[in-house]
Amino acid sequence: MQLELVEVTKEEDMNVIIGQTHFIKSVEDIYEAVVSTVPGIKFGLAFNEASGVCLVRCAGTDAHLVDLARDNALAIGAGHIFVLLLGNAYPINVLNAIKAVPEVCAIFAATANTLKVIVADDGAGRGVMGVIDGQKPKGVETDKDAGDRKALLRRFGYKF
Amino acid sequence: MQLELVEVTKEEDMNVIIGQTHFIKSVEDIYEAVVSTVPGIKFGLAFNEASGVCLVRCAGTDAHLVDLARDNALAIGAGHIFVLLLGNAYPINVLNAIKAVPEVCAIFAATANTLKVIVADDGAGRGVMGVIDGQKPKGVETDKDAGDRKALLRRFGYKF
Amino acid sequence: MQLELVEVTKEEDMNVIIGQTHFIKSVEDIYEAVVSTVPGIKFGLAFNEASGVCLVRCAGTDAHLVDLARDNALAIGAGHIFVLLLGNAYPINVLNAIKAVPEVCAIFAATANTLKVIVADDGAGRGVMGVIDGQKPKGVETDKDAGDRKALLRRFGYKF
Amino acid sequence: MQLELVEVTKEEDMNVIIGQTHFIKSVEDIYEAVVSTVPGIKFGLAFNEASGVCLVRCAGTDAHLVDLARDNALAIGAGHIFVLLLGNAYPINVLNAIKAVPEVCAIFAATANTLKVIVADDGAGRGVMGVIDGQKPKGVETDKDAGDRKALLRRFGYKF
Amino acid sequence: MQLELVEVTKEEDMNVIIGQTHFIKSVEDIYEAVVSTVPGIKFGLAFNEASGVCLVRCAGTDAHLVDLARDNALAIGAGHIFVLLLGNAYPINVLNAIKAVPEVCAIFAATANTLKVIVADDGAGRGVMGVIDGQKPKGVETDKDAGDRKALLRRFGYKF
Amino acid sequence: MQLELVEVTKEEDMNVIIGQTHFIKSVEDIYEAVVSTVPGIKFGLAFNEASGVCLVRCAGTDAHLVDLARDNALAIGAGHIFVLLLGNAYPINVLNAIKAVPEVCAIFAATANTLKVIVADDGAGRGVMGVIDGQKPKGVETDKDAGDRKALLRRFGYKF
Repeated sequence: MQLELVEVTKEEDMNVIIGQTHFIKSVEDIYEAVVSTVPGIKFGLAFNEASGVCLVRCAGTDAHLVDLARDNALAIGAGHIFVLLLGNAYPINVLNAIKAVPEVCAIFAATANTLKVIVADDGAGRGVMGVIDGQKPKGVETDKDAGDRKALLRRFGYKF
Repeated sequence: MQLELVEVTKEEDMNVIIGQTHFIKSVEDIYEAVVSTVPGIKFGLAFNEASGVCLVRCAGTDAHLVDLARDNALAIGAGHIFVLLLGNAYPINVLNAIKAVPEVCAIFAATANTLKVIVADDGAGRGVMGVIDGQKPKGVETDKDAGDRKALLRRFGYKF
Repeated sequence: MQLELVEVTKEEDMNVIIGQTHFIKSVEDIYEAVVSTVPGIKFGLAFNEASGVCLVRCAGTDAHLVDLARDNALAIGAGHIFVLLLGNAYPINVLNAIKAVPEVCAIFAATANTLKVIVADDGAGRGVMGVIDGQKPKGVETDKDAGDRKALLRRFGYKF
Repeated sequence: MQLELVEVTKEEDMNVIIGQTHFIKSVEDIYEAVVSTVPGIKFGLAFNEASGVCLVRCAGTDAHLVDLARDNALAIGAGHIFVLLLGNAYPINVLNAIKAVPEVCAIFAATANTLKVIVADDGAGRGVMGVIDGQKPKGVETDKDAGDRKALLRRFGYKF
Repeated sequence: MQLELVEVTKEEDMNVIIGQTHFIKSVEDIYEAVVSTVPGIKFGLAFNEASGVCLVRCAGTDAHLVDLARDNALAIGAGHIFVLLLGNAYPINVLNAIKAVPEVCAIFAATANTLKVIVADDGAGRGVMGVIDGQKPKGVETDKDAGDRKALLRRFGYKF
Repeated sequence: MQLELVEVTKEEDMNVIIGQTHFIKSVEDIYEAVVSTVPGIKFGLAFNEASGVCLVRCAGTDAHLVDLARDNALAIGAGHIFVLLLGNAYPINVLNAIKAVPEVCAIFAATANTLKVIVADDGAGRGVMGVIDGQKPKGVETDKDAGDRKALLRRFGYKF
């Protein structure tokens, strides 16, 4: 068994969600969860079928995002994972809807950062071990940093 | 610390769900979640207690499935994981009920495929790093493949 | 890429929950989920911001627990993870509330046991691969052990 | 405005769930929630569209149950309600899946009892005020009654 | 059919939650949901069985609260409702856990206010139509009132 | 006690959600649930405080929608209800997020139709008994109608 680091290919302002699921039905169910939550959402979705014909299954509302999701799913190559790339929306908009999809097992990451996926490969199959999401911490926030953080969330309108 | 590959032992038509939880109460709670969801369900459940007497704790409605769940839990040997083997039901039937159990932390996989679990062992304890669920993707679906996929879900009665 | 084992620093009767999330908003949201669930809860929370200034962000109701959460988050050093240390409460009290926070991706562990986190480090960033929660199983429960387990849950008042 | 009592028409061993929802999409979504949860479930579903052509919309896996659901939805006549009749399953199997459907507002009742629905009618429209589910209490349980209740749940296999 | 106003009997600092459920199993399930969420919680629970022996079924951790819950359930007299009285905890602590119980259909109210329940009675059975929770609004908040409201939530520690 | 019919005042293309909740904290929590789910959402929210100063509490991102929500909350006048008016979004986008808010008890309706609320008034307080959402059913769908319904959902992009 080999461990391998696969970097997700995406544009800087795209967000990506990667998770483990268990059935090709999840392609339609994740699609529906996403379009039901954000009106006019642009996204691409790919899922790695892991038995039989073993095809990367795709859906979405934006051809470029679908192509990128497909390429990332192929590069990761792990069975039963999905890759969801978001154009004009954020993980916070859709993550609870995706966690509630009845086939979804786990979410490995939801991020706009550089994302590297650690993949185990035993020749026959591949599996996600974990992710490196962005950079290491450089220090601890001061009271002023905490104030800036709270102000930022309020400027974005997320908190009162 | 060593990494080790443990293949789940199960019959081909059985489905397995493996997850991380945090307390022996999860044996009764996962049992109840499963029997409350599918009438007449046949299943076996095993949980690895990770402190004190450190016993594999078991429950279920089918002796053979309980034995297999127990053997897989022992073979994986990671603390606070559970193994659920389903006979006459599918992960999609019970997965949301299990995710809602208050002790359940994570679901590593839910699958009828060959499943290999990557386990870290540091001598004192063991932990699940990830899973290899089935086989690698062999290609990307064409429009015809997508049509076949949609038709299959509708033939099964899952989608309209 | 290196794999590294980081042991969580905590006192014996503290419980710890470690998970993956995706945004600094999760500091306030996990805080609110926890205080809304258990009146008078004592806890410390730390989150590793993974872009920009990359600070460990902290909150809580008990200074000692906040300090410990911060130290553990720094030691793990993985992007977008959080560490929640509980003083006078149990994971079972708050876990479903935390799983429902819209930024939370995954829970790696929830435990009072010795907890070791397997971390991958590629120089630029770090990521959690999995955890070793407590000890390996030492055997399988007998009928008497199962009876003791059920009695214990009823003595604690958790089950009827 | 008039208040009216509408008794649900069903056979004794059928269970019925009645709720408020908000869009014709709920026909397909409740159908999918139900078939995804119980393999081989027999049910009938009807939904009262409340604008435009205002038709009773139907789906299900058993023609007789669909007909009965439709007749009850017509008799109640309230806008945006649904009636779900279960043949070989119980409300406990599917209720959480239905509560999680994104269009579902409320569940008025889930019962095998005689069920009467209190409906307000102002000429243009109708609305459900509440339900009378079964009979009035006849007394308070004694310790022996409580013991019988606990034993029953365990004999059914629902609780340990 | 008669409409009747039943005032809930409780002490001023108690909180009450009243809802509709569908099976005697909900007594044990609501009990377990509540004790799993708030350590050391004091509460009383009563449920109106609505077929067969039609008994008020009770549980809880405080005899006085159980007696009060039972008296209120009898006074309301509607089939399949439950009354939960909280001593040292708040509805916000337990409401999501109760909404997730698989037998719970609806929550009519959760309040520390004077609570009056509107009940329909057709001779054979009774049903809850709605509740009057506290008093009518006396005006609209000014900017100063809104500031006081936000400050209060932060003084209580609920919000940042 | 009097029953009264209150028609919701709104423009035709607005959607309204009305529910029962239990604490002024729900103003901020529903606000946050809504803005976290739909980027750029325009909405108005009002909540009837039911003890102490008994003020209608308001929030939102659009002054006109906030004014309308406030007027409707005053007209309904029931304690602890909320009125949410949506401009550029649909109930399906936000309903599950609102149902998951820890103070929310019930949702009475979510609709773009004419909505009339049946209110009970006993002099001291008022309570919602139910709603009349749109119009009565005019018939039962034919196979052709069912086909049109399915086609519509697919044209909107909601279903495959």
